[in-house]
Amino acid sequence: MTTNPTPKTTTNISTKATKIKTIGILGGGQLGMMLAQAALPLGYRCVFLEDSPNCPASLYGKVYSSQQFEDFANHADVFTLEFENVPVKTVQWLQKLSQPNPTTDIDVDANVDADDAHKYGMYPPAYALQVAQDRLAEKKLFNALDIATVPFMPVNNKEELNQAVQTLGLPLVVKTSRGGYDGKGQFIIRHHDDVITAWQKLGSAVTGDGSLTATPAPLIAESLIDFSREVSIIAVRGQDGQVRCYDLVENYHHNGILAKSQAPAVGVGTLQEQAHHAITKLLTHLDYVGVLTLELFVSKNADGMPIVLANEIAPRVHNSGHWSIEGAITSQFENHIRAVVGLPLGDTDNVRPSVMINVLGQYPDIDKVLAIDGCHYHTYHKQERTERKIAHITVMPNDVSDLEPALQALIASLPNKVGLD
Amino acid sequence: MTTNPTPKTTTNISTKATKIKTIGILGGGQLGMMLAQAALPLGYRCVFLEDSPNCPASLYGKVYSSQQFEDFANHADVFTLEFENVPVKTVQWLQKLSQPNPTTDIDVDANVDADDAHKYGMYPPAYALQVAQDRLAEKKLFNALDIATVPFMPVNNKEELNQAVQTLGLPLVVKTSRGGYDGKGQFIIRHHDDVITAWQKLGSAVTGDGSLTATPAPLIAESLIDFSREVSIIAVRGQDGQVRCYDLVENYHHNGILAKSQAPAVGVGTLQEQAHHAITKLLTHLDYVGVLTLELFVSKNADGMPIVLANEIAPRVHNSGHWSIEGAITSQFENHIRAVVGLPLGDTDNVRPSVMINVLGQYPDIDKVLAIDGCHYHTYHKQERTERKIAHITVMPNDVSDLEPALQALIASLPNKVGLD
Repeated sequence: MTTNPTPKTTTNISTKATKIKTIGILGGGQLGMMLAQAALPLGYRCVFLEDSPNCPASLYGKVYSSQQFEDFANHADVFTLEFENVPVKTVQWLQKLSQPNPTTDIDVDANVDADDAHKYGMYPPAYALQVAQDRLAEKKLFNALDIATVPFMPVNNKEELNQAVQTLGLPLVVKTSRGGYDGKGQFIIRHHDDVITAWQKLGSAVTGDGSLTATPAPLIAESLIDFSREVSIIAVRGQDGQVRCYDLVENYHHNGILAKSQAPAVGVGTLQEQAHHAITKLLTHLDYVGVLTLELFVSKNADGMPIVLANEIAPRVHNSGHWSIEGAITSQFENHIRAVVGLPLGDTDNVRPSVMINVLGQYPDIDKVLAIDGCHYHTYHKQERTERKIAHITVMPNDVSDLEPALQALIASLPNKVGLD
Repeated sequence: MTTNPTPKTTTNISTKATKIKTIGILGGGQLGMMLAQAALPLGYRCVFLEDSPNCPASLYGKVYSSQQFEDFANHADVFTLEFENVPVKTVQWLQKLSQPNPTTDIDVDANVDADDAHKYGMYPPAYALQVAQDRLAEKKLFNALDIATVPFMPVNNKEELNQAVQTLGLPLVVKTSRGGYDGKGQFIIRHHDDVITAWQKLGSAVTGDGSLTATPAPLIAESLIDFSREVSIIAVRGQDGQVRCYDLVENYHHNGILAKSQAPAVGVGTLQEQAHHAITKLLTHLDYVGVLTLELFVSKNADGMPIVLANEIAPRVHNSGHWSIEGAITSQFENHIRAVVGLPLGDTDNVRPSVMINVLGQYPDIDKVLAIDGCHYHTYHKQERTERKIAHITVMPNDVSDLEPALQALIASLPNKVGLD
């Protein structure tokens, strides 16, 4: 899955990738940790901005708290992120450091002094983050780029909510356009009577008492459609504009938390091409650098043909791409690092079919897991806590006919099988 | 390539692997570094005994100097090594810590106090190290186990050297039985006149002035045979006696330094079985735990049939197995860690054919290397120095027909092509 819209400009890239020594990563969770695992063998050090000093990434590089932000910025040559709820202003400020007139004063509105330009960029760009943090802006962008979504409408007051029910029909899901995670900050309207409850629950996000979202923001009402499958596509874009896509992955969620990803998704027909086309348009429009994930529903169009509907983007490496550590020639983590430092991108082809299982809440007996051939264990070194993602296991036996038996044996060995039966 | 001579005793193993938190590694070079890269995702921390504080492994765990040996020993639960020139007494002492009566006094001859038994072993066993450190003992063991070698004789004095020339014929290679590395401490006798020079160069190893070997030790005289190929086999043995072998690898040396390994070696016919049989006998005889490497020459027997002749063992992970990080379902590093902590061993099958290139002395332009699909770069974070191993690159494109072109492109991109043309 490769497109190469522009020729590689190796000369410039070479200089940059060689000058960069340290990558500053906003966040130090397991995604930051796996980025560092990929960065170190390429010769890059990583530092992390993270308020938990014993975070997963701390095993691979120095952790700076948010109070040490300037120190963090000084100790890195280029910047990226591992979670998208970073303030956009922080990202804008880090971006400015690589522009001709940077300032060392933490003021995004300030001009940047020419002599201080000493950084090599912040990727992905702030604009991608802005879009990802706003469900309404995100869906509007999808549609503006001719990427199909479920029907949706903005909701700024109770009247507009009633209007949405009339226009879109029931059932309807109402969400805050900002914030909310793992099913929080949303409400499903199944009957006309539910409208009042929905407004009671979520209206404060619009009026702005701060309980649901930091600043007032409209709600978004979406048709609750029947979809047959949830899939995601991960792609990476380099600084030269090259785009490489991984194969579509099928995802299985439980209570909004990813339980399992199958790579590649089977029987997807033309959906791979649709998804590839959609994510390439997004990457190009956003002038994106790094790994981007696009979550999609599989539905049917008016002619009964299968189509993908864009649900949301994650401007980062993604849980549904963890299989790529073993299952792809180049992992999503290495490709993100390559993009951020300006190196050529690596082959995204699948090595073997694989399945990734999230370990939620409770660690398994690693003896039992590793007794199953083809199981690859990745702990996040976190304390156990209900439904917390604390490890993942990728099943990739040498012989694909062993995949299903190995997966069943693995699931049998897990203390918490939520979402896997 | 799997044999499973005894059933797995999962119950005991489980307890042990779960109790172990930290692995103490003797040595902190690139092998220690890659062991740590494999250990951390399984949930183990690593500490290193190493006198260079900025060694490659220092990025992955705490480094203790030899002056801090007791601290090192206290901070680990189980021990292993990454280079075989560790004093045998050190290994014996670490072994004692897991026996019923350990002592905290660093005296290998002392008894061990029952209450202090708190460690989980030192692997590989000291006996394997003793054999590996003595070329004569090593070759005698090969023959005692019916593993073919070149003809050889011990040389304790000038008369025995003359006797060896008569019995084995010329040409003959004479080596110190201990010490010596990368071609040092050996001499080739091509003519009868060379015998005097050989004794002048190497005799001091026997008489013992300390210039060649720390303590006096006999020389070994070996027939200098014509061999067509150099191969190695890597295998791992678990604490339950299970043995898993990687495919034979073909190695290309330059001045005694490994330049290239091809995995698997092609056209080996019955040689794989011969090598598998030989290393399994060695592992069992040594009651070995961990990864062992057996270096072999390919020659012909009296009937003109290809045979392997055992050259030497390395009681550790090996440069000729670096391809396994990408090229095998489970890498030699992960399998060594699994064995040391008492976990079940992983599948050693090849994922794709691959070739590993050592980067010697001078770093390449990583932009050019990574522009070649299927190239995997592993730096050791070391200073450049003539012929020093500072990185390796494994070439494993998705399509095997791309392997040779990718390899040629890679070699073209390297500043130092020694041993690769």
